[in-house]
Amino acid sequence: LQEALRSQAAAVLTRAEVAATYPNPDKPFVLVDNPRAAFVKVLETLAIPWTLPPGIHPSAVVEDGVQVGADVRIGAQVWIEAGAQIGNRVTIMAGTKIGADCTIGDGTTLYPNVVLYPRVKIGRGCLLHAGCVLGADGFGYIPAENGLRKVPHLGTVEVGDGVEVGANTCIDRAKTGATVIGSGTKIDNLVHIAHNVRIGYSSLLIAQTGVAGSVTIGNGVILAGQAGIADHITIGDGARVGAQGGVIGNIGPGESVSGYPARPHARKMREYAAVAALPDYVKRIRDLEKRLARLEAASQEEKDLS
Amino acid sequence: LQEALRSQAAAVLTRAEVAATYPNPDKPFVLVDNPRAAFVKVLETLAIPWTLPPGIHPSAVVEDGVQVGADVRIGAQVWIEAGAQIGNRVTIMAGTKIGADCTIGDGTTLYPNVVLYPRVKIGRGCLLHAGCVLGADGFGYIPAENGLRKVPHLGTVEVGDGVEVGANTCIDRAKTGATVIGSGTKIDNLVHIAHNVRIGYSSLLIAQTGVAGSVTIGNGVILAGQAGIADHITIGDGARVGAQGGVIGNIGPGESVSGYPARPHARKMREYAAVAALPDYVKRIRDLEKRLARLEAASQEEKDLS
Amino acid sequence: LQEALRSQAAAVLTRAEVAATYPNPDKPFVLVDNPRAAFVKVLETLAIPWTLPPGIHPSAVVEDGVQVGADVRIGAQVWIEAGAQIGNRVTIMAGTKIGADCTIGDGTTLYPNVVLYPRVKIGRGCLLHAGCVLGADGFGYIPAENGLRKVPHLGTVEVGDGVEVGANTCIDRAKTGATVIGSGTKIDNLVHIAHNVRIGYSSLLIAQTGVAGSVTIGNGVILAGQAGIADHITIGDGARVGAQGGVIGNIGPGESVSGYPARPHARKMREYAAVAALPDYVKRIRDLEKRLARLEAASQEEKDLS
Repeated sequence: LQEALRSQAAAVLTRAEVAATYPNPDKPFVLVDNPRAAFVKVLETLAIPWTLPPGIHPSAVVEDGVQVGADVRIGAQVWIEAGAQIGNRVTIMAGTKIGADCTIGDGTTLYPNVVLYPRVKIGRGCLLHAGCVLGADGFGYIPAENGLRKVPHLGTVEVGDGVEVGANTCIDRAKTGATVIGSGTKIDNLVHIAHNVRIGYSSLLIAQTGVAGSVTIGNGVILAGQAGIADHITIGDGARVGAQGGVIGNIGPGESVSGYPARPHARKMREYAAVAALPDYVKRIRDLEKRLARLEAASQEEKDLS
Repeated sequence: LQEALRSQAAAVLTRAEVAATYPNPDKPFVLVDNPRAAFVKVLETLAIPWTLPPGIHPSAVVEDGVQVGADVRIGAQVWIEAGAQIGNRVTIMAGTKIGADCTIGDGTTLYPNVVLYPRVKIGRGCLLHAGCVLGADGFGYIPAENGLRKVPHLGTVEVGDGVEVGANTCIDRAKTGATVIGSGTKIDNLVHIAHNVRIGYSSLLIAQTGVAGSVTIGNGVILAGQAGIADHITIGDGARVGAQGGVIGNIGPGESVSGYPARPHARKMREYAAVAALPDYVKRIRDLEKRLARLEAASQEEKDLS
Repeated sequence: LQEALRSQAAAVLTRAEVAATYPNPDKPFVLVDNPRAAFVKVLETLAIPWTLPPGIHPSAVVEDGVQVGADVRIGAQVWIEAGAQIGNRVTIMAGTKIGADCTIGDGTTLYPNVVLYPRVKIGRGCLLHAGCVLGADGFGYIPAENGLRKVPHLGTVEVGDGVEVGANTCIDRAKTGATVIGSGTKIDNLVHIAHNVRIGYSSLLIAQTGVAGSVTIGNGVILAGQAGIADHITIGDGARVGAQGGVIGNIGPGESVSGYPARPHARKMREYAAVAALPDYVKRIRDLEKRLARLEAASQEEKDLS
C-alpha cells in the first residue's frame, strides 16, 4: 500500500479494512471488496479493443461459397477459401488465411496473419493472436523402404468458446477425429499442441509449452512456461506443472509437479536441496570410509592380539 | 484388438495369426501383413490434400524475371521476387513470400504465410507448413566499441527432396556456404535450426527442438521434443536424443541419450532414481556418522582402559 | 592456421606474429590486428542486404492518416493502419502488418509477414525478421464466476535503436506502461518476451528463450538458448544464463548461472559430476552400512564377553 501511495497513480483501489489503517492518505482511496478484480474492471473501462471498420476490405479475397454473417469486419489481404462459414460480429484482420470449410463462431476475432487449415472449427467469442497456425498436419511417419512415409492427417481442430490462442502458437489437426481445445482455455505464445490432444475447460498453457500427441488434459489445469508433456499422458483436473517441467507419467487431479521427470513439487524441491549438498555428502562418505577402515584395522589388530 | 472391436470402426486391420485367435468377431477382419502400414494406406486413400486450382491468382505478385514451371498453383496475396525459379507442379498458397533467386523443386507445396529469404533452395516433393521462415540471418555478433556488431550472413539454406518443415519453424541461413537439410528429413513445428547446421537423410526433429550453430547431425537421427543441441556438436547416424535433452558433447552413431547434460539414457534413468532416493540416503549418511562416532568413542575408551 | 591453409580460401587473414611462424605459405597472408573483426569487415563488403525498390507497391494498403518519411520502400501486400508514423529510409517488406499509431524510426527494416499491434514504437536502425509479432496482449487472467476473466493490456512495446528481433519471436505489450527492449539488444528466433519485461542495452537473447512477466534484465546480459526466466526476477548487468537454464531467483551483475534451478555454473558442474557418480556412492553407502553393522556386532559381542 505504501508503494501504491508513493507511485504516480491518481487513486488507490483498496479494501476498507486496509484503508482504515491509513487515516490521512496523500491520495484518494477507492474502497472495493476485491482490488485486483476492481483494477481489471478499470482496465476494461479504459481499454480500446483493436478492431476494424465494418465490411470487407476490397483487397480481401473471399471466395464464392463462403457464408458470411452479419456485422463482420474483414481486413486487407485476407483470404477465405470456398466453403468457410463466418459467424456474426466476427473480425478477421489483415493477412489472415482461412482454409476451406472452416467455421468461425459469433463474436470471434482473428488478429493479423493467422492461418487456419481446412475444416478447423472455432467457437464463439474466441481471440486468435497474430501468426498462430491451427490445423497443420500432425507429425507422424512410419518407416518405409526408401525412408519415412507420411501418415496423412484426416482429422481437424475444434476450439470451444471463449478460447484465447497466443501469437505464433501451433495446434495440429488429428489423424482422425479432432484435436480439441475446451471452452475458456487460454493458450499463450509459441505453444505447440500436437495431433489428437484433448484439453478441457478453463485451463492455462503458458508460453512455449509443448504437448505431444494424444495427451488428455483436464479442466482448470495450469502448464507453466516451457513445460513439456510426453505423448499419451493424462493430466487430471486442477493439476499444475511447473515451468520447464517434463511430464512422462500420468498426473492425478490437483497434483502439483515440477522438474524432469516431473514429480510432486515439494519432493522435487527436497531433491534439489539434496543435490546441491551432494558434493559435501560425497566428502562425508569418503571420510566415513577412512574412519571405518581405521576402526576395522584396530578391531582386527585386537583380535590378532587376543 | 478387443479395444478395436469395441470401437466405432467398421472393420479391423489385423494379421492373420491374430485374427485366428478370434473365430467369431463382431466386425470384419481385413487380414494384412503390417496393420500400421495398411492403416496409413487407408488414410492415404481417404485423404484429400489441400491444394489450389491451377494458375496464378490475380492478387498474387509475381515479379518480372521469375521462372515459373508447368502446372503451378499460386494463391492469393503471394509475392515472388525477381529471379526466383519455381518448378513444375509447385503449389504456393496464400500469403507466402519468396525472396529473389530462390529455387523450388518440382511437386513441392508451400502452405500459407511461409517466408523464404533470397537464394534459398528447396528440393522436390517438399511440404513447408504455414508460417515457417527459411533463410533469416544467423545470430552472430562481435563486440565493438559502441556495442555489438552484426556478422553478415552471405550463405543460404539448402533443403533436399521430400523434406517436411513444420508450422512456424525457423531455419537460418549460413554465414558462408549453406545450412543443409538432407532429403527425407522431417521437422516438426516451432523448431529452431541455426546457421551452418548440416542435417543428413531421414532424420526427425520433433517440436520445439533447438539446434545451435554449426551442428552436424547424421542420417536417421531422432531429436525428441524441446531437445537442445549446443553449437559445433556432432550427432552420429541413428542416434536419439530424449525429450528436453540438452546435448553439450558429441553423440556417437546409434547412441540414445537424455537429460542435461545428455548422457546414455539407461544410465540417466539410474541417476534419476538415485536422486529421487537421495533425501533418504542423506539420512542414512547422518545415521552412519552417529553410529561410527559411537563406535569410535567406545574404541577409544577401551584403549584408555587397557 | 594449417586448416585455413588447407581450405579453399583464396587468402588468410591473420596476425603478423602468427604469419611469421609460416615463412613460405601456399596462400597470401593478409596481416590484421583482429582476424575475426577483419573477417566481419570482409563479409560486410561482400554482403548485399535484402531490400526493395524505392516507393510503395500498388498492392500495399497504406491507410489515410499514415505519415510516411522520405526514401521509404514498402512492399507488396503490406497493410499500415491509420495513425502510424513511418520514418525516413524505412523498408517494410511484403505481407507485414502495422497497427494504428505505431512509430518506426529512421533506417529500420521489417522483413516479410511481421505483425506490429497498435501503438508499438520501434527505434532507428532496427531489423525485424520475418513473422515476429510485437505487441500482442500479455497473458493475464483472473478467476471469475464462470471461468477466467481476461486482464486487458493497455500498455505497449517500446524498442530502442539498433535492435534485431528474430524470426517468429513474440514480444507482448505491457498491462500499463511498456515492455521495453533497450538499444543494441539482439534477440534470436522463437523467443518469448512477456508483458512488462524491461531489457537493457546490448544484451543477447538466444533462440527459444522465454522471459516471463515483469522481469528486469540489465545491460550486456546473455541468455543462452532455451533458457527460461521466471516472473518478476532481476538479472544484473553482464550476467549469463546457460542454455536451458531455469532462473527462479535474482541473478547479480556478472554472475554466470546454469541448470534448474539456475545456480553458479562452476558449482552446477560439480553437482552434475556428483550426480553422475551417485549410483556408485549409493553402493558405497550400503557397503559402509554392512561393515559398520559387523563392527557394531563385534563390539557388542566383546562387551557381552567382558
